[in-house]
Amino acid sequence: VAERGSGIPVVVAGLGDVGRAIARSVLETPELRLVAAADPAPGLAGRKLESILNAPCPDLTVASDLAKAFAAAQGGVLLQATRSSFEAVRPQIEQAVRAGLSVASTCEELAYPWLRHEAQADALDRLCEKSDVAVVGTGVNPGFALDRLPALLSQMTGRVRHIDAVRVVDANARRPALQRKVGAGLSEEAFQAAVERGEVGHVGLAESVALAALGCGLEVDEVDEELEPVIAARDLATAVPVREGAVAGVRHLARGYADGREVVRLELVLVAGAEHPRDEVRLDADPPLRISIPGGVPGDEATAWAVVHAATALPMLRGLVTVLDLPPGR
Amino acid sequence: VAERGSGIPVVVAGLGDVGRAIARSVLETPELRLVAAADPAPGLAGRKLESILNAPCPDLTVASDLAKAFAAAQGGVLLQATRSSFEAVRPQIEQAVRAGLSVASTCEELAYPWLRHEAQADALDRLCEKSDVAVVGTGVNPGFALDRLPALLSQMTGRVRHIDAVRVVDANARRPALQRKVGAGLSEEAFQAAVERGEVGHVGLAESVALAALGCGLEVDEVDEELEPVIAARDLATAVPVREGAVAGVRHLARGYADGREVVRLELVLVAGAEHPRDEVRLDADPPLRISIPGGVPGDEATAWAVVHAATALPMLRGLVTVLDLPPGR
Repeated sequence: VAERGSGIPVVVAGLGDVGRAIARSVLETPELRLVAAADPAPGLAGRKLESILNAPCPDLTVASDLAKAFAAAQGGVLLQATRSSFEAVRPQIEQAVRAGLSVASTCEELAYPWLRHEAQADALDRLCEKSDVAVVGTGVNPGFALDRLPALLSQMTGRVRHIDAVRVVDANARRPALQRKVGAGLSEEAFQAAVERGEVGHVGLAESVALAALGCGLEVDEVDEELEPVIAARDLATAVPVREGAVAGVRHLARGYADGREVVRLELVLVAGAEHPRDEVRLDADPPLRISIPGGVPGDEATAWAVVHAATALPMLRGLVTVLDLPPGR
Repeated sequence: VAERGSGIPVVVAGLGDVGRAIARSVLETPELRLVAAADPAPGLAGRKLESILNAPCPDLTVASDLAKAFAAAQGGVLLQATRSSFEAVRPQIEQAVRAGLSVASTCEELAYPWLRHEAQADALDRLCEKSDVAVVGTGVNPGFALDRLPALLSQMTGRVRHIDAVRVVDANARRPALQRKVGAGLSEEAFQAAVERGEVGHVGLAESVALAALGCGLEVDEVDEELEPVIAARDLATAVPVREGAVAGVRHLARGYADGREVVRLELVLVAGAEHPRDEVRLDADPPLRISIPGGVPGDEATAWAVVHAATALPMLRGLVTVLDLPPGR
């Protein structure tokens, strides 16, 4: 397959489930041109990209050397789907920015990096300005269901007194990796140990609190988080089988406060066999507003598209930005 | 009440129900400063603004002379809630733009003026650029429920094959003027005559088709509209009483086509006593997405806030823009 000659040059870093979905989405987007894909994993580096994507694509070999890939995409965009931690993704992002690429990343902490890494975020912002490029962390959660959506809704109301949003995901309907990530099948003791090792739980909910507050015009001076197991009330014939009394998933709560008063409450329920999966936002304001996405926005597939659409908008932006800086349409 | 010394200076033109709601919302918004209000209607011009708003406000008299009001607000924003037709509002907008004001207006045709008035819209765009200001038409419908909302949702999907959105409003829950606007209580013959006189029906649905298509990345080369009465199946004890067999309201359909294929279908149901009032959007795409606002966004109150929030964003924009150019948060 010949490379298309026009479009914004794009490098995809990370070829896990989401990275592959991103690469396939890039191939469907006429404004973008896939010029390189990279993943250092032993089973991926050196292989033909086409064999990994199961989709017709340019004749590319999966790279492990990003410097070369970035040189081929100067003035373009890095689409990064690797890690959840800002510190883990920062070296690669800085390398891309220095090479003159903008970056759209699924890194959850990057959705609002000032929350946990203020000085490093400010430094990255300055580096972006210097290189005349933009960096954004985006996706469904964080990046849409619990932050960008309440922000848009708040355009239709007066002062927002309180944001209440919930995302319920049936982990069984998603890839097995997610079911393990929510601790399905573990005993309560094993669950708590896995939480302490950082193997169970979701990154980005506190970032969504900060983003939702910012987008709705609220000032939050404190954010706290709670994580608790959801216990199966009966045996579940899910992809990872869950016995009655074992952990079926996780309930994650993040709250934002202003002067000690709760003003944001975000709840994420990731449970195998969860009933009524949905995204739902309630704004306590005049007028009060409620919005609901029955079934919920599907995480991986929609996250890939969020990243790809961000790539088409980034050339118009500068600095380290958030999804609140992205245009609401295409 | 003393004027606040800071904030963007704002003039409100039109003090009907929506204009008054806008003025009250401006008073609640610290970023804005109400410096003048104008309405040439005999019962309004010359009166104290406070007596019309029933709210504490700066000591202002309702003006009929806009030139003076604009001079007092140079570098600020005109919030206009007067007419639905672009040609009807254009002289006042041009006057404001020439005086150095940006404009946010409830004018329905202004939501996407290129649809019916391409040359005049382009001329207004050039005038805005020359005066270094921005003009936008915004509100709930058009401006949010059937256009900006599907656009945001499409950020989470691949190519959109079809947009299907419906807004159902219980006209009885709204001001009596709306119930008359939908023809409630008329015979079918009187309804058709009122439609032909332009007294019944909604302006802006075709503009929403164009905006929704633009925001979802669809090209539409043709838009058509249909308007039909909804007949009461029983007597309705609504604000304007409706007998069985009389008109209870209106069903308005607007469709957009690409190469003869329907790609956008927007339906607006404005009926006294309508069941399940709501806003609902469905995108036929991968992944398919549906979003719903039970009860629907309340038209007048939310339109006022949409205009007021646009006022805070306009100083960062230039030209004749659409709601798709407004930031999704505050």
